[in-house]
Amino acid sequence: MRNHRVNGERLWASLMAMAKIGALPKGGCGRLALSDEDKAGRDLFVRWCREAGCSVRVDVLGNIFARREGRDPSLPPVMTGSHLDTQPHGGKFDGVLGVLAGLEVVRCLNDAGVETEAAIEVAAWTNEEGARFAPAMCASGVFGGAFDAAYVLAQKDLAGKTFGAELARIGYAGAEPCGGRPIGTFFELHIEQGPILEAENLPIGVVTGVQGVRWYDVTVSGQDAHAGPTPMEMRRDALLAAAKMVSAVNREARARAPHGRGTVGQMLIIPNSRNTVPGEIKFTVDLRHPEKAQLDALEDDVRRAFGEIAGKGCVSVEMARIWDSPPVSFDGVAIEAVRASASALGYAHRDIVSGAGHDSVYISRVAPTAMIFIPCKGGLSHNEEETAEPAHVEQGANVLLQAMLARAG
Amino acid sequence: MRNHRVNGERLWASLMAMAKIGALPKGGCGRLALSDEDKAGRDLFVRWCREAGCSVRVDVLGNIFARREGRDPSLPPVMTGSHLDTQPHGGKFDGVLGVLAGLEVVRCLNDAGVETEAAIEVAAWTNEEGARFAPAMCASGVFGGAFDAAYVLAQKDLAGKTFGAELARIGYAGAEPCGGRPIGTFFELHIEQGPILEAENLPIGVVTGVQGVRWYDVTVSGQDAHAGPTPMEMRRDALLAAAKMVSAVNREARARAPHGRGTVGQMLIIPNSRNTVPGEIKFTVDLRHPEKAQLDALEDDVRRAFGEIAGKGCVSVEMARIWDSPPVSFDGVAIEAVRASASALGYAHRDIVSGAGHDSVYISRVAPTAMIFIPCKGGLSHNEEETAEPAHVEQGANVLLQAMLARAG
Repeated sequence: MRNHRVNGERLWASLMAMAKIGALPKGGCGRLALSDEDKAGRDLFVRWCREAGCSVRVDVLGNIFARREGRDPSLPPVMTGSHLDTQPHGGKFDGVLGVLAGLEVVRCLNDAGVETEAAIEVAAWTNEEGARFAPAMCASGVFGGAFDAAYVLAQKDLAGKTFGAELARIGYAGAEPCGGRPIGTFFELHIEQGPILEAENLPIGVVTGVQGVRWYDVTVSGQDAHAGPTPMEMRRDALLAAAKMVSAVNREARARAPHGRGTVGQMLIIPNSRNTVPGEIKFTVDLRHPEKAQLDALEDDVRRAFGEIAGKGCVSVEMARIWDSPPVSFDGVAIEAVRASASALGYAHRDIVSGAGHDSVYISRVAPTAMIFIPCKGGLSHNEEETAEPAHVEQGANVLLQAMLARAG
Repeated sequence: MRNHRVNGERLWASLMAMAKIGALPKGGCGRLALSDEDKAGRDLFVRWCREAGCSVRVDVLGNIFARREGRDPSLPPVMTGSHLDTQPHGGKFDGVLGVLAGLEVVRCLNDAGVETEAAIEVAAWTNEEGARFAPAMCASGVFGGAFDAAYVLAQKDLAGKTFGAELARIGYAGAEPCGGRPIGTFFELHIEQGPILEAENLPIGVVTGVQGVRWYDVTVSGQDAHAGPTPMEMRRDALLAAAKMVSAVNREARARAPHGRGTVGQMLIIPNSRNTVPGEIKFTVDLRHPEKAQLDALEDDVRRAFGEIAGKGCVSVEMARIWDSPPVSFDGVAIEAVRASASALGYAHRDIVSGAGHDSVYISRVAPTAMIFIPCKGGLSHNEEETAEPAHVEQGANVLLQAMLARAG
């Protein structure tokens, strides 16, 4: 079994064929969850799975499971998968790679006539991106017990259409319950969406966990004032204070190198007039760290810095935590299966912590889970220019194949 | 003549009567230039002027001149005035005070039977605010030779209506040329629109000039990146750099205390997504100083600081100057007339530089000019809550009366 290898060209061709569905002018893909494009992508995937001899089931959240039966159908399946939906201006690899690499594993085992002890399943999780329906990763979240199915089915897009209605419209509202069945091990192959592997010239990242993420909404309140007549020392400039807070977020995250992350991504200036000192600023903070204690400390330090800046600037500040996704540590046995497979294949690799959320975050709550990263050019993702090397795609799929075989027996 | 005093109650009553035209729910006024409300305000002013025995002329820009003839009609008139138009949510004093205080001077001279050597004129300049038609102060600008009449008449509001057509519609397109005639001295009474006089508990500001103002559009270009996977040291965070630039603008303006001003009032974050390191920021800078050399140096220092911040942050920066309004120094004799009048009246006063533009900026190009400021509560203006004390209104008008008498003989 150690000698089996995926067919890299076939996998690449499948990725490029899928990328034609919802293709965008700059080379990317737009397949928003439960759109017509998503339906077309699902239809293609289901057809390919059936052609590969798999049985296909769909659960009430629209999650698709393609099963290649094992010698012992009573064993929990070894599962892999990711998602087929994309950002509005997404790339050809984010999510899709993990689904089609799973299909390639099945095709490869078919070619070689290999029978596994446990069944192999390939999952396509619904609405991972969260770009159309919040929250992100919501259907794997139901599988993992983080959300109720009814809650997710009731979510609305900006046009007021519900997840449930759109799922039924595209014909993917299955009858099977979501979750509640055992999985032997879950693996997910994904592009890194960051620059580390590329910078270190490594084809494989052994993902040991996912950073904890906390989101905050911050409001700084000062006083509107004329930019001309108001002396500098009499101002209560909310933007000046917010600017210093942006610097503080960066400084505090850097103080917890290399894993600390701090980002201000959104900002609203009120009244946003060229010759008015802004009286109110709203901005977001995104803090991340793979260790809860460090994330707690990072939050404390940011809060303390904000308070000091507000005091000196004669403004007030409110910082509300609106989301807390705890750090995830993947399963030791599953991680070792990935690491050993990469080593056996002779692929250079390093352990890496995922900075982004993935379906694996929630699946890891109900199954031993690990992930495999491959580099993407410039670390670019959620962008039409997102791209990966065919060689890395093939290497990542080989690691997935070997890790699944190691666990499926 | 030194004993003449305005009738403060009459002036206040006139201000409150005018404020009923275009009155807004929170106590402010909405009389956008050349609107029906502006016409009603003009009609009331013209009626009051005629009742006070003035001749009234209107020029091609709609500027209104009410004249109280002097003993020697061949002398250039001593003129005062300001504007009757307001911001969309403006106050009851900005501009209106300067026009109605001029009318009160005429009424007071009538009451006392005083005949002046030179004629007294009260001007109401069209569209000072610039809120409906850009640029601001455009009709006094034509009078002062800064703009062509045809240019201003062709300006359009957001609905596409031209200044000229709207001026004709409300019946204020006069036949008289705009400007080109001598003015002995021009005085303008105005609320400070800043907090200095209130903070120092002074009723009168002797305005010696107007700050130079320069406006800039700044673009900072970095690179979008995922907030999670992207290590802090690999980021090209445009918002972080822009935040440091906001601090630098403040620092450099403070380095030129007390007159330097630096404000960032508008900012646009691209793509403005909570979990994306922003790749591009656009923001405005407003720099002011009463001395050109200092304003030049302030701009140089800000440019240098921006360059250093961009270099350290691995981003690029472009800073384009889009407007340059040079500093204005008012006429020494006119300033002294204001200062001496305030002193003779026993009113505490200080010299002050206007941070905001006024019609006097352009009139000073063709006539000896000075301004008188009175405090406004909290320095608040361009706001429905803008307010001034009746006592200060009366004191300001008395200074105007005495200064005009000193110059009109």
